[in-house]
Amino acid sequence: MKISILTLFPEMFGALSCSIIGRAVNNGFLQIDIVDIRKYSKDKHFKCDDYPFGGGAGMVMMPQPIYDAVQSVDPNRKCRRIYMSPKGRVFSDSIVKEIASDSRDLLILCGHYEGVDQRVLDLCIDEEISIGDYVLTGGELAAMVVVDAVSRFVPGVLGSEKSNRDESISSGRLEYPQYTRPAEFMGVKVPEILLSGHHENVEKWRNKESERLTSLLRPDLTENEK
Amino acid sequence: MKISILTLFPEMFGALSCSIIGRAVNNGFLQIDIVDIRKYSKDKHFKCDDYPFGGGAGMVMMPQPIYDAVQSVDPNRKCRRIYMSPKGRVFSDSIVKEIASDSRDLLILCGHYEGVDQRVLDLCIDEEISIGDYVLTGGELAAMVVVDAVSRFVPGVLGSEKSNRDESISSGRLEYPQYTRPAEFMGVKVPEILLSGHHENVEKWRNKESERLTSLLRPDLTENEK
Repeated sequence: MKISILTLFPEMFGALSCSIIGRAVNNGFLQIDIVDIRKYSKDKHFKCDDYPFGGGAGMVMMPQPIYDAVQSVDPNRKCRRIYMSPKGRVFSDSIVKEIASDSRDLLILCGHYEGVDQRVLDLCIDEEISIGDYVLTGGELAAMVVVDAVSRFVPGVLGSEKSNRDESISSGRLEYPQYTRPAEFMGVKVPEILLSGHHENVEKWRNKESERLTSLLRPDLTENEK
Repeated sequence: MKISILTLFPEMFGALSCSIIGRAVNNGFLQIDIVDIRKYSKDKHFKCDDYPFGGGAGMVMMPQPIYDAVQSVDPNRKCRRIYMSPKGRVFSDSIVKEIASDSRDLLILCGHYEGVDQRVLDLCIDEEISIGDYVLTGGELAAMVVVDAVSRFVPGVLGSEKSNRDESISSGRLEYPQYTRPAEFMGVKVPEILLSGHHENVEKWRNKESERLTSLLRPDLTENEK
């Protein structure tokens, strides 16, 4: 899967070179291109923002540099083109799977300041996605969140397929509590059943804990099942 | 406001040195300390994870290095201690404001792999927060999202207070469309009212557009008002 991210702040994307995503890129399971919108500005000072028509605080990203950057990355409109925006569909596990199973490559536009000229969104973007009901200083962190969540479903990115199925949310339930060594820490012991070596009982306990935590903390997650 | 972030991947946090957040740190409005959990491991190879008790895929972060890192950063339990987790309360604009108005400093623990030993969470953490209903490869991006969203409400971080009030979500409504120069782009003109110079009409148009977009795209945002 190839992902192109269009941004005014290419230096913000170092996190995608680290850990699991960085390894997936190095191993060729993912290709991530960070595209600097500023390079496409036709202004002699590479200006990419201007005052909003109608007044108001802040600056708005101009349409021309974005339009030209999108055209250069995806001239034949073959990518799934996403704009990160608080106005978008709220990102969720089902959207993650939808994007991961889409055969198209991904193009993600990051806004900044007071947003992006509406016309270039109308001309260039297929869908707006919001990672949640809060406002960020720009779309860059949101884009990384989308890349990270989607990448987990790209074959080869996670070592073990099981790792994905067991996780909170993906299974429609919250995950059971995890414990590792030592068996006693600060006077608190690991639940005995986990030390029993009895796989069936461990499985039962974990399922029960998952259900208990889900109905305690996030009853909304299973309401659709009823 | 001081924010300490505990992580196994300190190199992932470069994004917080850029743009608006980076400037806020440089200007002293924010202090962000990235704390490498690995430095607190008592293992001679600085190991911080181990197999889960009871079996299963993946590794679990061990309690000791985290416990010692938390103790070192906040020995007297004066911080608001947050663990980023899909099990947590779903982050929202109201939680952003709650954290921003909290007089305590912030401590954010980032998990990785299959999660963190439950005992150290029980011992050290005040609350778990999830940035949305999707799974990430680790808590680092989620922590940056929290820092970014909260920072916008820290006095001095945003140039103009107005910039915060107008935004989507914060106002309980989606933002009106924005336009900047040129007045005509690819044959598409800016709505004439925005060029009229008539502030009252511009304001009316923007309010109407906000309401139209909210009831079209996110009717749930205003349902609580009714």
